[in-house]
Amino acid sequence: MRVGVFGATGAVGKELVQVLGDRGYPVTELRLFASTRSAGTRLPTPFGEKTVEVYDPASPPKLDLALLAVSGEWSKAHAKELVAAGAVVVDNSSAFRLEDDVPLVVPEVNAAAAGGARLIANPNCTTAILAVALAPLHREFGLKRVIVSTYQASSGAGAEGMQELEDGLREVLANGGQAKNAVFRHPLPMNLIPHIDSFQPNGYTREEMKVTWETRKIMGLPDLLISCTAVRVPTLRAHAEAVTIETERPVTPEAARAVLARAPGVKLADDTANAVYPMPLTASGQYDVEAGRIRSNPVFGECGLDFFVCGDQLLKGAALNAVQIAEALPLKMAA
Amino acid sequence: MRVGVFGATGAVGKELVQVLGDRGYPVTELRLFASTRSAGTRLPTPFGEKTVEVYDPASPPKLDLALLAVSGEWSKAHAKELVAAGAVVVDNSSAFRLEDDVPLVVPEVNAAAAGGARLIANPNCTTAILAVALAPLHREFGLKRVIVSTYQASSGAGAEGMQELEDGLREVLANGGQAKNAVFRHPLPMNLIPHIDSFQPNGYTREEMKVTWETRKIMGLPDLLISCTAVRVPTLRAHAEAVTIETERPVTPEAARAVLARAPGVKLADDTANAVYPMPLTASGQYDVEAGRIRSNPVFGECGLDFFVCGDQLLKGAALNAVQIAEALPLKMAA
Repeated sequence: MRVGVFGATGAVGKELVQVLGDRGYPVTELRLFASTRSAGTRLPTPFGEKTVEVYDPASPPKLDLALLAVSGEWSKAHAKELVAAGAVVVDNSSAFRLEDDVPLVVPEVNAAAAGGARLIANPNCTTAILAVALAPLHREFGLKRVIVSTYQASSGAGAEGMQELEDGLREVLANGGQAKNAVFRHPLPMNLIPHIDSFQPNGYTREEMKVTWETRKIMGLPDLLISCTAVRVPTLRAHAEAVTIETERPVTPEAARAVLARAPGVKLADDTANAVYPMPLTASGQYDVEAGRIRSNPVFGECGLDFFVCGDQLLKGAALNAVQIAEALPLKMAA
Repeated sequence: MRVGVFGATGAVGKELVQVLGDRGYPVTELRLFASTRSAGTRLPTPFGEKTVEVYDPASPPKLDLALLAVSGEWSKAHAKELVAAGAVVVDNSSAFRLEDDVPLVVPEVNAAAAGGARLIANPNCTTAILAVALAPLHREFGLKRVIVSTYQASSGAGAEGMQELEDGLREVLANGGQAKNAVFRHPLPMNLIPHIDSFQPNGYTREEMKVTWETRKIMGLPDLLISCTAVRVPTLRAHAEAVTIETERPVTPEAARAVLARAPGVKLADDTANAVYPMPLTASGQYDVEAGRIRSNPVFGECGLDFFVCGDQLLKGAALNAVQIAEALPLKMAA
């Protein structure tokens, strides 16, 4: 399979290359694309050293699979060119996620939706991490209401976000005062920023509404009552989420635990007696989303459940999910 | 007024001394008590330099007001001795908070409850920060359900917690790997720990249940449906909370904003167009609790509201509230 990774020098792009290797994706040719700034750079990959290329819209490369870890603007401008040139495109940006004719896929939840599509959208990181835990609970107990508060790592803003956090922390620890900020709207070291993406007229941020819109689409529940508060926290690369659900049918922690224990893509981390619960420390670098702190929430009587999830934002929240989509596709090498 | 501060060398104790000075509390004599380890240390205070003493149960000091920032065990053992020796005691520990004959007070909410009591409990930090925003909303709209997710600073574990975070971050930034931990159950740098205080049989931590139990007592709503997920985050000294409420009567963001704008102890920080919202960066060192991100939550139809609060854990969450309790008391100097 001829595979192109676009945005190959970014945080998600690097993970895409690594995950393709780690999972043994049948790559026969790997091509890496990035901005002119990185062009010509030689990068080691599981498929040998590769030279970073600049994409030329006038002559799109011949690819079977194009994995896009670029801006929404770039995807909007070029994804369909790549499809026209023969590739199946998995796009990590928000450009096409809500378009009716573009499937939005978390393979553990709705792999079939990818069907014969040639352009497939990869969901928002917070949504992907949430959906793998929410979907099996919905199948068993029915979801009535979902309330999510997030704890999102700096990696959600890419390698630059992670670098700004590290540099800022060094500065604050050495000299006190406040760190400089450019990637984030405010300094992130020792701080929390309840503002990810732009504010919408309804007072929610776009990031928060993505969780609502995308979860509904992925789960096929267009009227699901779901809300989110999205907060950037000073961690490196795993997002956590505190989730409260009201179910249609009574739910117990034991029953929910049994459901999550056998859910694909979920690792139960729920042994409070031994201080085991989802944390960035344990979830980072892992494919599975950790789920734990499972308990009845009496606010919703016998239909209330609380749990906590943590997943690697760069893996299940981005690169892993994209490669899983590719694996689920009936891809054939183009002529 | 003869005032004693117990646990005077700890994070909260130091703030107590500072707040007494800043607010012009009528201190005629200030005595500082701490463990034998700190005994004899000379400390600068707004009331002149003082020598740290060790408390002698055999001869309790003559005080009008004793402010306790010590362990629950210490309070249980000695608070009543101090009362017997003539002091009114404001205890920052959890020792007496749920005892029927001990008022639990957030002055903006239930100052009258302190009445003629000689032993008054200061609430859990998360609860105090929450209550100043929740109480006025309850008075106006009626509370039906409250769902809270917290983002709690290292200061909640005292000066040692803050030090462990700073030392750990330095270590991780210099050498990579994981930081050492002793105060926290897991390393806190670049991590989140959904485990504060011990786990209860119902799966919630004691910290989470304190928010339920203490909010109900302070607000005089013994049956309030309220739940909490408490998470330690790598910040220094302000706690934040994402709050979703279902009200009895319809609520709009505009009406809620008007209520919170005039609520004592609350500072509205809700100008999203200018990226103003509650954050540790702006709430730290401030008396008022910041409230913002106020928006309708459609999960509860026209009775749903989301908001975000952030308050200095060492001030409104501890020292300030204790001094405000003292200010609200009809204290007279003992003979």
